[in-house]
Amino acid sequence: MGSSFGKLFRITTFGESHGGGVGVVIDGCPPRIELSIQDIQHELDRRRPGQSKLTTQRAESDRAEIFSGTFEGRTLGTPIMIMVRNEDARASDYEPNKDIFRPSHADYTYQAKYGIRSWKGGGRSSARETIGRVAAGAIAKKILAAHGIAIHAWVSRVADLGCTVDPTQVTQQAIEATPVRCPDADAAKAMIALIEKVKSEGDSVGGTVDCVALGVPVGLGEPVFDKLEADLARAMMSLPASKAFEIGSGMEGTHLRGSEHNDEFYMEDGRVRTRTNRSGGVQGGISNGEPILLRVGFKPTATILRAQNSVDEQGTARELQSRGRHDPCVLPRAVPMVEAMAALVLCDHLLRQIALKGAAGGTA
Amino acid sequence: MGSSFGKLFRITTFGESHGGGVGVVIDGCPPRIELSIQDIQHELDRRRPGQSKLTTQRAESDRAEIFSGTFEGRTLGTPIMIMVRNEDARASDYEPNKDIFRPSHADYTYQAKYGIRSWKGGGRSSARETIGRVAAGAIAKKILAAHGIAIHAWVSRVADLGCTVDPTQVTQQAIEATPVRCPDADAAKAMIALIEKVKSEGDSVGGTVDCVALGVPVGLGEPVFDKLEADLARAMMSLPASKAFEIGSGMEGTHLRGSEHNDEFYMEDGRVRTRTNRSGGVQGGISNGEPILLRVGFKPTATILRAQNSVDEQGTARELQSRGRHDPCVLPRAVPMVEAMAALVLCDHLLRQIALKGAAGGTA
Amino acid sequence: MGSSFGKLFRITTFGESHGGGVGVVIDGCPPRIELSIQDIQHELDRRRPGQSKLTTQRAESDRAEIFSGTFEGRTLGTPIMIMVRNEDARASDYEPNKDIFRPSHADYTYQAKYGIRSWKGGGRSSARETIGRVAAGAIAKKILAAHGIAIHAWVSRVADLGCTVDPTQVTQQAIEATPVRCPDADAAKAMIALIEKVKSEGDSVGGTVDCVALGVPVGLGEPVFDKLEADLARAMMSLPASKAFEIGSGMEGTHLRGSEHNDEFYMEDGRVRTRTNRSGGVQGGISNGEPILLRVGFKPTATILRAQNSVDEQGTARELQSRGRHDPCVLPRAVPMVEAMAALVLCDHLLRQIALKGAAGGTA
Amino acid sequence: MGSSFGKLFRITTFGESHGGGVGVVIDGCPPRIELSIQDIQHELDRRRPGQSKLTTQRAESDRAEIFSGTFEGRTLGTPIMIMVRNEDARASDYEPNKDIFRPSHADYTYQAKYGIRSWKGGGRSSARETIGRVAAGAIAKKILAAHGIAIHAWVSRVADLGCTVDPTQVTQQAIEATPVRCPDADAAKAMIALIEKVKSEGDSVGGTVDCVALGVPVGLGEPVFDKLEADLARAMMSLPASKAFEIGSGMEGTHLRGSEHNDEFYMEDGRVRTRTNRSGGVQGGISNGEPILLRVGFKPTATILRAQNSVDEQGTARELQSRGRHDPCVLPRAVPMVEAMAALVLCDHLLRQIALKGAAGGTA
Repeated sequence: MGSSFGKLFRITTFGESHGGGVGVVIDGCPPRIELSIQDIQHELDRRRPGQSKLTTQRAESDRAEIFSGTFEGRTLGTPIMIMVRNEDARASDYEPNKDIFRPSHADYTYQAKYGIRSWKGGGRSSARETIGRVAAGAIAKKILAAHGIAIHAWVSRVADLGCTVDPTQVTQQAIEATPVRCPDADAAKAMIALIEKVKSEGDSVGGTVDCVALGVPVGLGEPVFDKLEADLARAMMSLPASKAFEIGSGMEGTHLRGSEHNDEFYMEDGRVRTRTNRSGGVQGGISNGEPILLRVGFKPTATILRAQNSVDEQGTARELQSRGRHDPCVLPRAVPMVEAMAALVLCDHLLRQIALKGAAGGTA
Repeated sequence: MGSSFGKLFRITTFGESHGGGVGVVIDGCPPRIELSIQDIQHELDRRRPGQSKLTTQRAESDRAEIFSGTFEGRTLGTPIMIMVRNEDARASDYEPNKDIFRPSHADYTYQAKYGIRSWKGGGRSSARETIGRVAAGAIAKKILAAHGIAIHAWVSRVADLGCTVDPTQVTQQAIEATPVRCPDADAAKAMIALIEKVKSEGDSVGGTVDCVALGVPVGLGEPVFDKLEADLARAMMSLPASKAFEIGSGMEGTHLRGSEHNDEFYMEDGRVRTRTNRSGGVQGGISNGEPILLRVGFKPTATILRAQNSVDEQGTARELQSRGRHDPCVLPRAVPMVEAMAALVLCDHLLRQIALKGAAGGTA
Repeated sequence: MGSSFGKLFRITTFGESHGGGVGVVIDGCPPRIELSIQDIQHELDRRRPGQSKLTTQRAESDRAEIFSGTFEGRTLGTPIMIMVRNEDARASDYEPNKDIFRPSHADYTYQAKYGIRSWKGGGRSSARETIGRVAAGAIAKKILAAHGIAIHAWVSRVADLGCTVDPTQVTQQAIEATPVRCPDADAAKAMIALIEKVKSEGDSVGGTVDCVALGVPVGLGEPVFDKLEADLARAMMSLPASKAFEIGSGMEGTHLRGSEHNDEFYMEDGRVRTRTNRSGGVQGGISNGEPILLRVGFKPTATILRAQNSVDEQGTARELQSRGRHDPCVLPRAVPMVEAMAALVLCDHLLRQIALKGAAGGTA
Repeated sequence: MGSSFGKLFRITTFGESHGGGVGVVIDGCPPRIELSIQDIQHELDRRRPGQSKLTTQRAESDRAEIFSGTFEGRTLGTPIMIMVRNEDARASDYEPNKDIFRPSHADYTYQAKYGIRSWKGGGRSSARETIGRVAAGAIAKKILAAHGIAIHAWVSRVADLGCTVDPTQVTQQAIEATPVRCPDADAAKAMIALIEKVKSEGDSVGGTVDCVALGVPVGLGEPVFDKLEADLARAMMSLPASKAFEIGSGMEGTHLRGSEHNDEFYMEDGRVRTRTNRSGGVQGGISNGEPILLRVGFKPTATILRAQNSVDEQGTARELQSRGRHDPCVLPRAVPMVEAMAALVLCDHLLRQIALKGAAGGTA
């Protein structure tokens, strides 16, 4: 269960690391949107392994196929199925350790929950599952773009190395300028050096991804459980390796006094604005028209090339020595995932708000 | 929309700050559970205003009524409706400022979204909405307790004042020993002093609530979007004033190397355990049998008794001067809310896992 | 579980025959709709017992209260809770037979499913549960009326006594002209005589209710599982005592050849019309702009004042002799229930289609 | 929207008649169930066109692929994706009439709803969509069989030709003995003759499919909106060409008196039974342990090889003359669809009841 996300723009992902492949069904995409495989492939290429020396060398080309839901290059309004076949199914890498529970991986919990698991590459817990999210997110981004909404995410910190970025000025070009996807060039350089060093040590490193959504209209989100920040939090905390979520001023803001933290309102060009944006673009669960600002913390990758103590399926103490490919830092590849999840949440709430406004006579 | 939460143990809250009252419908509560009004009232009393000088003096007795779903003191398996009538509807407090958007409140976004709002005490955005959650959470706690699961939350930081607490040893008695609900007595004293000072200045202060769930069996949670930490994040970020969520090592863990962060497995009494618990009791979205540890950051209360700049419904610049009662620190009252939300998530996932195990032949 | 209905206009009912009362929460009602208690009460009065000698004499006044979700006479866009307290809780009527399973009632299945049941008046299986549906349906009707959609239901057959009615010409006035709610005056007279006779014999009688929705725009409904007729079928078959559902030509149409059954298209006033309406206003699950026609079959009421063989909770053969009040024919009171359920389905699909059109650029 | 069905055993279908193909994602299938492609293919072969001269000659082999969710021949508990590629995409058949709305098809309503449609073979409204349902139903049947539940459907009437069948004695062998899938051999012969005659006339014919579920335990189903018969009704009325649904005594029962219709209880082998089964195995929405009996009415196929009047997309009157292949009677191929939908409903409710019982301490 739990492989679906969204209410009106609803996706269901499927697939494991090894086996036929992975993919997604999108139910609720509006009709008549121009959609080509390039729209999807571009985002998948940002996510796929092997795109730079910073990431795992698993050689998946991740070629997507739009299987259903389009006709003569446009969406039909019916379910869009997109899939990617697995290629580099080097299961033999996993064979020697197949009955050992890898520390901080999902091997043990899957085995305990289901009484069965695919020990090949993590099965459903593999980051390959996010291919479906990124593919669906590409469509959501197109819909949002048509409504003037842009989403950018970037690596804002690797271990202790932060950066200096104005969220409202960041560009995709600057983000994509380096393989680490930090738009602050100096910081990016230092981050790359650190990741290479950590990789050479067979170790891994974590950090944060920041995300901004610009052009979001006032009114997206719901008052109670489906608050915009609640749905964003769920979206981000459902990504592999995420450990923390912040909206607006986040944890830092909890150190302030109310008199320091409140965002005063003023008028600008006939529009209600806030002087500061500690709310992160959301008040009472509903977007207020300011940029939506969020941050996601990712732990260091669990796969390391060092000996670790563990146990196997029989309950025997075992030493685990992973070999071969590993991804020393999930952050650069997490950037398109964070963008995709943000896009999915905003697209869903955009459709919900369109429904509400239409039903209320168009004047809400 | 968005007033429902949970899949098998599903609640729907209703009500505003002023008007008839607030409440909740719980659909999916198992039958034959002993349930008395005292079970509910006890938790509501921990949440209600006026319980100490640290909180708002709004004098609501918050007397709950179980309207449906029980018979001769036990649950029927049919929807349980619990409601609390509003009493202290001192709407006149809000009259003078009724058309001014209070900074960092939901006045503006509600008005923009709906084209109408109850200006009396925040309407649906009032923390009174959480009465329904706390009432439902009281039932969830009973169910969890019958399965050996206990949940404790406490104030772990007020502004810059932290505390020293062993999450696995904390008791409800220690938490309830002081009105600030911090089980570290020395820290509690300092926190109380700070809150009183801030109150006297007409200002407010934020901080963090920590929460632990003990006795959680292995296997709760789902692999992808309904990861346990994702549902917990949504639950907590749907609480008024929450700005940040962390599971396990949280943001701090993102500064570590993988070799420092991984939780090694070992056997203890025939059971798989982890030496450390940076995972916070959840791996791959599924509980691993260790204590579940989470943290929620709450911003300083938006209502302060100081002049603030704002605008009104007509788009005119206005100075807002709030008067009367205010809650200088939401944290002590947030403790039962955090417990309730954690209980609702765990109870729902417990039922889901019971379904899975039963369907798989009882051996999963 | 299963006490909720609808996707965007979503209701949750609660309550039992005896106990606090019954009611409904409506989540997703558009904001700014004028709503008074009279809007609700009018429909409840059509549903309540004791309104004529044809129905049960249980003396419930069924006074509704709008508990939340409105402000100054208009909807807020937040959950509307409406409730009716139980009054005539003559539980003693049920005491003598409390451990006997009444034939064709839900006593046995509830007991088997839950291991507990309220033996007072059927508990949750009582038709009193439909109060919440009718109350919510009253609001749905208001929304539909604002979009030019009208719904009428009437008793079309009692046992073997049918009637002659043109569905497109039927009026509420004609329906309400007699207590049997059949707009064909002659047929109504015969039906009333039959029901009175059956009542005097301590027996009961079934029949059919027909329903038409006029003014439904083209495009409501979804292609696959949420076909308009599928949702209508579920809605109607969820009513107490319903045994059959037909759309358009229904069972009769299955005797025809395709060449006799197909609805040919033609143009009228620039609009696509069908010459015949065997489709019942729905093609491929989606409304085609013609009147929506459906029929619901209701079995004879299970409660009869005659001795019946049965067993009790202990598995002992027992003779059941019901006494006191009984409803010899559910049909007249089912009319507002059928209208309410039809309104709920159409209102939900109207909001869904508004969302789709808005998202597709308003031109769908 | 609306391409998903079920709550715990949840399927999502995708695909159109022409394009990549069709398929299904099943989320919530229990783990460790043995599953081979033969389990699926067997049911698909019963559904596919060209299996006998009674059905359309469209030559699809409908070879299924299990793309995800299994490992070493057993289910993983993660989403199972099954797909069938389209082969016989003879779109040219549809080219000449591509802008004409075929009477009683979904061409007009799809065009009106979406502003776009695949005119090739009906697109999403094609009966090919049911491939995903039948594939998922095959898995549901396996799960049900392991719990002692068997489902049989058969053609019970073609036009005016009925049959004599004891639902509790019917076998798959008897059903599959003739291409018309009526287990009454004499009736089958007559039905085949009629269908062949109608086919030779370029016309089509409707009728009914009956379905029985044997071995269903007491307690499946929910009291209010998710009544077992309500979910079954929605399931059946979501099948292409269905016009009517009956449970138990159905429409016929509505002509009886309560004293004739009620099912008296008695004890047999320590178990509560009913003397008659006019309830059709469901009381108050919940299964009572007796055979579940339902009937679905299907209209005559809309595609006929005769000239019909219609209009085109431009609103011009046009004569439609369909040529080539057509299915003169949908009923034989509807049999596996009805079985699949019944299996999906019962499997979902079985898992729900397992959850309820487990949560209530196993004694419910």
